[in-house]
Amino acid sequence: MTLEHLPTDVRIVEVGPRDGLQNEKQPVSTDIKVELIERLARTGLRTIEATAFVSPKWVPQMADSADVLTRSLALPGTSHIQFPVLAPNLKGLEAALSHGVREVAVFGAASESFSHKNINCSIDESLARFEPVAKAALQAGVRVRGYISCVLGCPYEGEVSPQAVAKVARKLADMGCYEISLGDTIGMGTPLATQKMLQAVAAEIPIESMAGHYHDTYSMALPNILASLEMGVRVFDASIGGLGGCPYAAGASGNVATEDVVWMMHGMGIKTGINLEQLVDTSRWINRQIGREPASKVSRALLARTEQSVSA
Amino acid sequence: MTLEHLPTDVRIVEVGPRDGLQNEKQPVSTDIKVELIERLARTGLRTIEATAFVSPKWVPQMADSADVLTRSLALPGTSHIQFPVLAPNLKGLEAALSHGVREVAVFGAASESFSHKNINCSIDESLARFEPVAKAALQAGVRVRGYISCVLGCPYEGEVSPQAVAKVARKLADMGCYEISLGDTIGMGTPLATQKMLQAVAAEIPIESMAGHYHDTYSMALPNILASLEMGVRVFDASIGGLGGCPYAAGASGNVATEDVVWMMHGMGIKTGINLEQLVDTSRWINRQIGREPASKVSRALLARTEQSVSA
Repeated sequence: MTLEHLPTDVRIVEVGPRDGLQNEKQPVSTDIKVELIERLARTGLRTIEATAFVSPKWVPQMADSADVLTRSLALPGTSHIQFPVLAPNLKGLEAALSHGVREVAVFGAASESFSHKNINCSIDESLARFEPVAKAALQAGVRVRGYISCVLGCPYEGEVSPQAVAKVARKLADMGCYEISLGDTIGMGTPLATQKMLQAVAAEIPIESMAGHYHDTYSMALPNILASLEMGVRVFDASIGGLGGCPYAAGASGNVATEDVVWMMHGMGIKTGINLEQLVDTSRWINRQIGREPASKVSRALLARTEQSVSA
Repeated sequence: MTLEHLPTDVRIVEVGPRDGLQNEKQPVSTDIKVELIERLARTGLRTIEATAFVSPKWVPQMADSADVLTRSLALPGTSHIQFPVLAPNLKGLEAALSHGVREVAVFGAASESFSHKNINCSIDESLARFEPVAKAALQAGVRVRGYISCVLGCPYEGEVSPQAVAKVARKLADMGCYEISLGDTIGMGTPLATQKMLQAVAAEIPIESMAGHYHDTYSMALPNILASLEMGVRVFDASIGGLGGCPYAAGASGNVATEDVVWMMHGMGIKTGINLEQLVDTSRWINRQIGREPASKVSRALLARTEQSVSA
């Protein structure tokens, strides 16, 4: 029995409002974004990535970041909830700080080619840019979360070595990131590769500071989460209803759906603190706003059950 | 590293032509069924469930079973391939034998309520009915595979005890079944429950004679396969393109897609003997015949890649 030593509880980091909606073609109003965050907060989630303080020229979906953050922080009864926002530079950080941010996120890639094509500089250069951002955030009493992309494959280079991931993780930890989210950006990872990558990273930073961020492009997100649980990882990023990938466009499946992760955890007796029924309701609600079905089998199956019992 | 002791190879049992097409609303012609079986045989699959010798009154989709079996067995270069057919009674077995069948399958449920509602008798009564079928098959030199349904949950009873599954497995093995396929009919199983069930069954029959048959209704098929691999299971049932569930009808997701299973195995260095590219081509082909997209993220992602490179 290899699953004997599962943890008693895990923490889910909801990335739908930022990572999800940023990658949706369908524009979403500030009101809907804030209502989504409010509904998510009511499900029991304790970490909800809210928005990104980035150039509206490059990321028009996040142009309302100041409003979204201000209104999220003002939601009643949410003082225990973290609303991290992406802050890739000092300008973004200062804007976020001026709106009362309590947690920010910075990011690096584990692949040189991806770093060059995505943000036009080397991995080391990108980390050097984030260093003053992290420093200023910590000085302001703000927590910093780190993201690493391409930890299990790169669209330009193919395979990425576990050591390359571990090196970036070490540097982000040295900057003061309390948690490092390990992102399988293109979803190429399988469970064995995931465990090898985690093992390499665990040689550099404590497993307690690692989060798994797996994409479901090839259906591997849940097997990879299971493989990570076995290694002792207890934090997982997920996106309500699989926001960020379109189930009707072939090949565009991205973030794993939060409700699928919660279903698997609860099914194994692992606590998440999240009300699955409310989560599924929220998934249905936000998907209706953007005019589609949830990209989550759990949501679809549970909603079909409800419809059957209503029509019966 | 808990995945260190993975097997070097697994066998995939393709159930699309029978279990898949039997559950598709869209009728499929005999020619298409046989072409599907021929294409599947060319991918490297060694076991392809071909059809069912059942009453056409109850299962009109399988009314052409004699033709499908005869034409499958006549396909050139397939003498190494098994084409099991369902034979629930002596009449069905005799018809299958008269068409040269080399392997048949019988089935039992692990849930009394399911057995009563599905075939109108108790588990013991159903096994007593299959006993002479298995005996006659073995006497004719035909291999017998057993199926157990509801091994991880029942739509009427809810939870099913691992001991109930183990008991039916023991009886099917005693009848002479060389392999017992353990079916999570309603897809409610999660990895920990899967391992507990397998452990109970392993106390009764050798792990080498067990096959995992998991449904993806709640996205748990691949995590459950991973959990089964760890327990030493090396045979898995799957359906090309996820045939048997409709991705556009909420909640109707059924069999796990063969290409997703093969992708995960190959990604972990586990051999299947199957050509993934041909499998994806076959998935696209059969799904076009029934007018929809493959219910497989691997197929969708790989087909999208191909389309991108064609249009680039």
